[in-house]
Amino acid sequence: MTYTSEYPFVYLTADVLAFALRPDTGLSVLLVKRGSPPYKGRWALPGGFVDEREDLVRAARRELREETGVSGRRLRLEQLGAYGAPRRDPRHRVVSVAWWTVLGPDVVPAAGDDAGEVAWLPVDELVGSRRMAFDHATIVADGLERLRSSLERSTWALTFLSEEFTVAELRSVYETVWGRPLDPGNFQRKVTGVPGLLEDTGRRVGSARGRPAGLYRPGPATEIRPPLARP
Amino acid sequence: MTYTSEYPFVYLTADVLAFALRPDTGLSVLLVKRGSPPYKGRWALPGGFVDEREDLVRAARRELREETGVSGRRLRLEQLGAYGAPRRDPRHRVVSVAWWTVLGPDVVPAAGDDAGEVAWLPVDELVGSRRMAFDHATIVADGLERLRSSLERSTWALTFLSEEFTVAELRSVYETVWGRPLDPGNFQRKVTGVPGLLEDTGRRVGSARGRPAGLYRPGPATEIRPPLARP
Repeated sequence: MTYTSEYPFVYLTADVLAFALRPDTGLSVLLVKRGSPPYKGRWALPGGFVDEREDLVRAARRELREETGVSGRRLRLEQLGAYGAPRRDPRHRVVSVAWWTVLGPDVVPAAGDDAGEVAWLPVDELVGSRRMAFDHATIVADGLERLRSSLERSTWALTFLSEEFTVAELRSVYETVWGRPLDPGNFQRKVTGVPGLLEDTGRRVGSARGRPAGLYRPGPATEIRPPLARP
Repeated sequence: MTYTSEYPFVYLTADVLAFALRPDTGLSVLLVKRGSPPYKGRWALPGGFVDEREDLVRAARRELREETGVSGRRLRLEQLGAYGAPRRDPRHRVVSVAWWTVLGPDVVPAAGDDAGEVAWLPVDELVGSRRMAFDHATIVADGLERLRSSLERSTWALTFLSEEFTVAELRSVYETVWGRPLDPGNFQRKVTGVPGLLEDTGRRVGSARGRPAGLYRPGPATEIRPPLARP
């Protein structure tokens, strides 16, 4: 493409920050290993250039699908923000619009086209580290803060879980993301008191401590009211 | 600027959504009347093209200053998000990074360079209306939602007020932004109970109902803990 203009222009990318809870690495982010310069061999968020007439969120969905195989109707992306520091890419002025989402425990990614390798890396090892390409460690840190505050009011916590879950499993999501233990009785009382948040399946499973625990599935609520306050 | 590349590129703008409470128009947004096409004569957010090596937030501050005369060290901008639908600008592919802020009651804007006219327009008349240029009515609607949720935890409400204020004036900010009446006693108890939120000046002013009310100024707190829950 060739263009002449009085205004400066930029290249535009869409990057996706996908969180999940993994049995081995805890709260983790889905990353791809860069197969070409710049930052060849470093871990990066799945993402790439936005096509000429492509909407921003569609570009994010496409890049996620192409690079990690993750897609689906139920995949919900929220915008985290634009990252546009003049030298964040050594080649040109590249502005990235970053999106975030939460993936369930059953998602199995697979490296696609441009990505040499795909992996879950624990969030703890990424924030503030120099292992990531571009300013992606900053995007992860910002996204983690957004995830933490979103859990107060939104139903994102449920997205980390299987279709059916116990209240203890839901509490564990909050404890892992917020990095703080929560009082079990207090938590149970609060979440079961939110209208439409949890639907009781009527079934029970044995728990570690021996007492059977109720199995729930997500209800129709789209918001947690009153909100859960982060300790 | 001339460039040839295999990747599509976009033009980048920074737009600023500045809220204030005005005696005549209530919760309002600072707008400029466009002096040139497209959308000539329509109201738009102050903003413009990002310079070649300019950081995004610096571009936003510069455009706000150039178009409205509003600037200052204490002006704090938060990013609202990127707006990049392919046809949001009839000329080219233009992506806007939108920022939001709150201005105090003493700010007096003045039309600058490119802006023919500058005015406060009430938020109520803008959301969902066709009076604004580009997708700026959508940006106002998104920003209003962000402002409403931010008031739960952030200290942005104080920025609407003069340096010294009564608790009733602070409550009025919340009531106006949230569009709901709040219980005066409950509100007073909550906000005066947040450590470091309000500093008592020790002075009092006569109130409308005759009882003198305490005058406060902002304390050192940067967050409202526990948060105020929106009704």
